[in-house]
Amino acid sequence: MGKTIKYWYGFFLLSSIAINILFTINLYLGGRIGGGSGGAGLSWSEKAAAEAEAVAAISCSGHGRVYVDSSVDSEGQRVCECYDCYTGIDCSQISPTCPADANSGDPIFLEPFWMQHATNSAILISGWHRMSYSYDDNWFKSTQLENYIRKMHSIVGNAITEGRYIVYGIGSSQLLNAAVYALSSQNSSSLPSNVLASVPFYQMYKTQTVFFNSENFQFKGDTNAWQLNNSTNNMDVVEFVTSPNNPDGELKKSILGGKTIYDHAYYWPHFTPIPAPSDHDLMVFTLSKLTGHAGVRFGWAVIKDKDVYEKVAKYIEVADLGISKDTQSRVLTLLKLAVEGDGKPLFKFAYSKMSDRWDRLTSVFSKSTRFSIQKRHPLYCNFFNETRLPSPAYAWVKCEREEEEDCTAVLLEAGNIIGRAGSIFSAKDRYVRLSLIKSQDDFELLMQRLTELVSLENGSIETM
Amino acid sequence: MGKTIKYWYGFFLLSSIAINILFTINLYLGGRIGGGSGGAGLSWSEKAAAEAEAVAAISCSGHGRVYVDSSVDSEGQRVCECYDCYTGIDCSQISPTCPADANSGDPIFLEPFWMQHATNSAILISGWHRMSYSYDDNWFKSTQLENYIRKMHSIVGNAITEGRYIVYGIGSSQLLNAAVYALSSQNSSSLPSNVLASVPFYQMYKTQTVFFNSENFQFKGDTNAWQLNNSTNNMDVVEFVTSPNNPDGELKKSILGGKTIYDHAYYWPHFTPIPAPSDHDLMVFTLSKLTGHAGVRFGWAVIKDKDVYEKVAKYIEVADLGISKDTQSRVLTLLKLAVEGDGKPLFKFAYSKMSDRWDRLTSVFSKSTRFSIQKRHPLYCNFFNETRLPSPAYAWVKCEREEEEDCTAVLLEAGNIIGRAGSIFSAKDRYVRLSLIKSQDDFELLMQRLTELVSLENGSIETM
Repeated sequence: MGKTIKYWYGFFLLSSIAINILFTINLYLGGRIGGGSGGAGLSWSEKAAAEAEAVAAISCSGHGRVYVDSSVDSEGQRVCECYDCYTGIDCSQISPTCPADANSGDPIFLEPFWMQHATNSAILISGWHRMSYSYDDNWFKSTQLENYIRKMHSIVGNAITEGRYIVYGIGSSQLLNAAVYALSSQNSSSLPSNVLASVPFYQMYKTQTVFFNSENFQFKGDTNAWQLNNSTNNMDVVEFVTSPNNPDGELKKSILGGKTIYDHAYYWPHFTPIPAPSDHDLMVFTLSKLTGHAGVRFGWAVIKDKDVYEKVAKYIEVADLGISKDTQSRVLTLLKLAVEGDGKPLFKFAYSKMSDRWDRLTSVFSKSTRFSIQKRHPLYCNFFNETRLPSPAYAWVKCEREEEEDCTAVLLEAGNIIGRAGSIFSAKDRYVRLSLIKSQDDFELLMQRLTELVSLENGSIETM
Repeated sequence: MGKTIKYWYGFFLLSSIAINILFTINLYLGGRIGGGSGGAGLSWSEKAAAEAEAVAAISCSGHGRVYVDSSVDSEGQRVCECYDCYTGIDCSQISPTCPADANSGDPIFLEPFWMQHATNSAILISGWHRMSYSYDDNWFKSTQLENYIRKMHSIVGNAITEGRYIVYGIGSSQLLNAAVYALSSQNSSSLPSNVLASVPFYQMYKTQTVFFNSENFQFKGDTNAWQLNNSTNNMDVVEFVTSPNNPDGELKKSILGGKTIYDHAYYWPHFTPIPAPSDHDLMVFTLSKLTGHAGVRFGWAVIKDKDVYEKVAKYIEVADLGISKDTQSRVLTLLKLAVEGDGKPLFKFAYSKMSDRWDRLTSVFSKSTRFSIQKRHPLYCNFFNETRLPSPAYAWVKCEREEEEDCTAVLLEAGNIIGRAGSIFSAKDRYVRLSLIKSQDDFELLMQRLTELVSLENGSIETM
């Protein structure tokens, strides 16, 4: 008995020493015992990492999110940010009369992809990360990131970047006006350049051009209408070509063939077959519609001419001394993952989502004579190596009944659906844009409301 | 002997079991053994955290940095980004003839503070972090962050924010032009507003106003000169007041007393005593000169009038649909730490650095008759509760010898020092601005070169 006690005493003592040794090794070498993927011990970074995981673990019933910068309640708990139509502390309550909001182009449909690739898409930013205005080898631009942007285009085959210049901007938004500035300042006449886009077009072209009220350029509306009334001989023109087009998804081409800004925000394989790499003088892209990170505010322009490139770059510099280094660091992390497997995991996921949504959408609209959506034409996609239908980001809905001239009002009043009116795209209000790239919750509610609306056509009672 | 072997055998066996139990607990409960602050087990966030620590551990001889987005060499190793004048794989080689570059206002003097507070200043951004264009409760602006900005002003006592609106911008840069736009569009006449600033002034005011070439405003140069030649009765004026002034650190006041933009980039306790909270209609601040994070590109405006606020906010929206959510998240993390201890740790660190640099600088210039620097006047600082000398971000150097009209050239040719010419601030080239807020390496080299230059005055040979 005495021996046994002694034995156990010895065991506990020595085990304790062993454990202490392990603790000590851990403490001094920063080593980590068990668990985790890297095996590297963490010190200063652990708190931020643990906080990110803690907030990510809060479910919000699947109808909301908590982020590391979400607000906290009086007890110090992070507050769920509920998706549209969901309320309550844990976002579990649905509001049954809530409208289906298909207004904005918020690309949340890609959120699940990034959740599935959590490990390789996270980035830890230290307190002293890139405090300087400039990079080591470049004033405002991460060269590493530029390499990945070129690689992405090369993989997808949607744009020629060899021998071209690349400029970054705050989303594509800032680059659109920077491009107008650059092209209009090449104007040899003393008159302002005429800025044009063909109807229906993304309203930002007009909003910016009018808002900044420069002596260098003025917005002149629809390209086709303008062409009928003007000879281009003595007039300087800058033409916006959106391809695929926002709102209708059409692969547009320049009408005037002069100075053009190709807005290629949606020229990615989940929205359109990629028939060939775009080879235009000035092409604008945005991360928002590639990876779904609208909130990051990152876009880039691919530019052929050195003088135009320098003017666009100068615009960004004068506007805000370049763009956030944190943004560039994060975009690099995201693109590194996005190009993995030659982009197949990302684009397969994204295309699958979009084509599924289009299948369901066309099924509903096929039962309607009151509403129609844009025709889609199959094209050979060089990225997926097969002929496919496009699956645009938006449905461009038309009210077919002659008396229903305000289609946005019809959808809202008869269907409790919020769309974006045709007139916002300088088209007729008989048209309305419905966003198909929001969250799954948003899409499900939209489908439910559309189904109900279309089913009314064959019933005897309509709400209007 | 046999007993001893048996004893040790028992020990190893049981120790091994104990260790296995510990491993198992770690694996199943996600617990962590020893080390670290949180004790929470990490999964998807660990790789990013480990990578951040790994790059932070690369020393670059103390004369460079590696970041998580630094480029990699052919062997996959991150490449040191060396500070000015240092080269080599580990930045260990100094280039003896390298000029002391005191040109830019890169606020790297605060980098050590953030390294000392690594744990609480880090942020881990997940791949799905804030993908949306908007916040839950606000279109483009983090409300959480706004609370901390107000708290910071309240702690420091440098600006009244109660009942004022706050707008964010890409650095203060973007807000400067947004403010010009907002104030000039309140112009009742059909003529463009006259934009003025008093010499010497930060060149960005002129650069932006000229560059954007709006029909709403035009740059008219020095406020004092303009006042002599014009009656303000019939003319709309927007006056920039930079306080403390860039380049000379003076606490300026409006000359015309009309519509003004107060650029308070440097109105923080490390650069100037804070005599009272600023209470002007439109005040612009930037993170760059508060925490040293120039690369983050974040600024804010504090605005009294609702109409002006809405116009500034509209400008930011039209320019780029708001600013990066990642930027806002990071700034929140930084400000949370910055306000700890009522801001005393940050501002004590920063003031100590700046006052030390000024002590050494004045000691050198006191021995010179060839060069002089601006006079500094003591003021009572309500933040530090004592009378102090200002310690401006820049030395505003004057060449006193009549023939030395180009002081920038004198410093470069006789002293191998790069400054920013007076003419860039619309002043005489007899003046030159030297930056005192760069890294310690930069400052040490500047001091060495200045000391040598001044010592030449008493010697028989000068290089010019």
